[in-house]
Amino acid sequence: MRDLKRKDKLVEAAGDVYGKTLSLLTLDVCSDESVKQCVDSIRDRHVDILINNAGVGLVGPIEALSLDEMEQVFETNFYGVVRMIKEVMPDMKRRRSGHIIVISSVLGLHGVAFNDVYSASKFATEGLCEGLAIQLMNFNVYVSMIEPGPVNTEFELKLMTEVSKKEFVGADPETLHHFRSCYLPTQVNLFQGLGQTPKDVAKVTKKVIESPRPPFRNLTNPLYTPIVALKYADETRSLSVHTFYHMLYNLGGVMHVTVRIMKFLSFGWLRRRSISPT
Amino acid sequence: MRDLKRKDKLVEAAGDVYGKTLSLLTLDVCSDESVKQCVDSIRDRHVDILINNAGVGLVGPIEALSLDEMEQVFETNFYGVVRMIKEVMPDMKRRRSGHIIVISSVLGLHGVAFNDVYSASKFATEGLCEGLAIQLMNFNVYVSMIEPGPVNTEFELKLMTEVSKKEFVGADPETLHHFRSCYLPTQVNLFQGLGQTPKDVAKVTKKVIESPRPPFRNLTNPLYTPIVALKYADETRSLSVHTFYHMLYNLGGVMHVTVRIMKFLSFGWLRRRSISPT
Repeated sequence: MRDLKRKDKLVEAAGDVYGKTLSLLTLDVCSDESVKQCVDSIRDRHVDILINNAGVGLVGPIEALSLDEMEQVFETNFYGVVRMIKEVMPDMKRRRSGHIIVISSVLGLHGVAFNDVYSASKFATEGLCEGLAIQLMNFNVYVSMIEPGPVNTEFELKLMTEVSKKEFVGADPETLHHFRSCYLPTQVNLFQGLGQTPKDVAKVTKKVIESPRPPFRNLTNPLYTPIVALKYADETRSLSVHTFYHMLYNLGGVMHVTVRIMKFLSFGWLRRRSISPT
Repeated sequence: MRDLKRKDKLVEAAGDVYGKTLSLLTLDVCSDESVKQCVDSIRDRHVDILINNAGVGLVGPIEALSLDEMEQVFETNFYGVVRMIKEVMPDMKRRRSGHIIVISSVLGLHGVAFNDVYSASKFATEGLCEGLAIQLMNFNVYVSMIEPGPVNTEFELKLMTEVSKKEFVGADPETLHHFRSCYLPTQVNLFQGLGQTPKDVAKVTKKVIESPRPPFRNLTNPLYTPIVALKYADETRSLSVHTFYHMLYNLGGVMHVTVRIMKFLSFGWLRRRSISPT
């Protein structure tokens, strides 16, 4: 954790295992020193499975976002992963054993309007890891991406609260209108309708860890599979750009109903299929 | 150009049009000030078509690459594009007209071992632009990605010369052996066999500009279409990771022959189909 003072909830959830199979260490993935100190403090620096979970969000029209804000997103979402991998991968290679997992996002697979910078940081991580996965096969080290859709957490709550207060200086009124009256309601709709719990994502991650040949790509929400497939349905990708455009700007009402229907259906077989621990 | 002192070759190639339809300005996409000054010096700041072409490469095992080196790649390949788009997009939106083109790469669509950071920077740009393309449809502004495979330029020559001299301190001997004896020869093979000329890429770009509804995604080399399609042939992407692994480490000889056959074939219909100006 970045700040061990905030450990109470986790310790409570861990119950008996805290201090036995669960230890907590201080780690800030944005700091070279912190990453080194954390891994050095583990016995023999031996990490079997690295799960990169740290992440921050950023939404809004890019006219109103500074390069500093963008760099902060990359600092955690991309360079945080790079720092951790650089620190543990050489030992994994030497031992010819290890599994690197990255909690990515469906936004690492398709871009979304007004989520451009977050998408870019997740795309970057996907590109980096696709290359590493090939190279690391020689060393019996696996790389797996976990790609959740919307997940209802404090992360999202905090982001939405920040966004509602922010003025987005630099964006023209029309763009801001699209952002506030099309993008934000769609997001709320998607989170309420399709949102998973952190536990759902953890279950998929556990399944990937336990798999004898862990797959590289793992969407946690089967409702997103057709959306990602759409992107590849035509080689120009204009189809998905047009579809997302209409979903966002012209079909708000239809979207709302559709998401409700999908949610209803997902309590049945879809949900069971995706997150069953077996 | 970053350095107008190096304009001679370009001026010579331009012939009569230099000073008439072609003007040269100083521009460093890594500098906020330079980007602003360049656009300010254009009459009415009016840019109809922005082509983002600046790019730098970085290859090698990531254990031997510093975060500073990685950040430099992102500074040009990603933030350079962000700076330029932020500078011209608001005016394009106001005029309800414009076309943003990014010279990306097939490495923005699939990762390659030992090219992890360059891939990541191009993936990031793809993710950013997928989101922007959706948002900008409201303003009649198009976004198009041009994705070349290998292109024989000074860029590649310079990169390969640098790589041959570099010691890659921090990488273990086995990884370095894979890099030097599998990756580098495969690259040379691919560039010799499938490499296009900068003119080929320019022709595709011209065709995209002239298109009444410019497509979002544009591979310049049809020989790469099956390689990109492979990535999406199974939803776990393990298939493409395994295929690239075998191509790189186990099938060097077969690759060499295959690339030659592809080159031979590509002089026929494949080549014509891809870069014909009609």
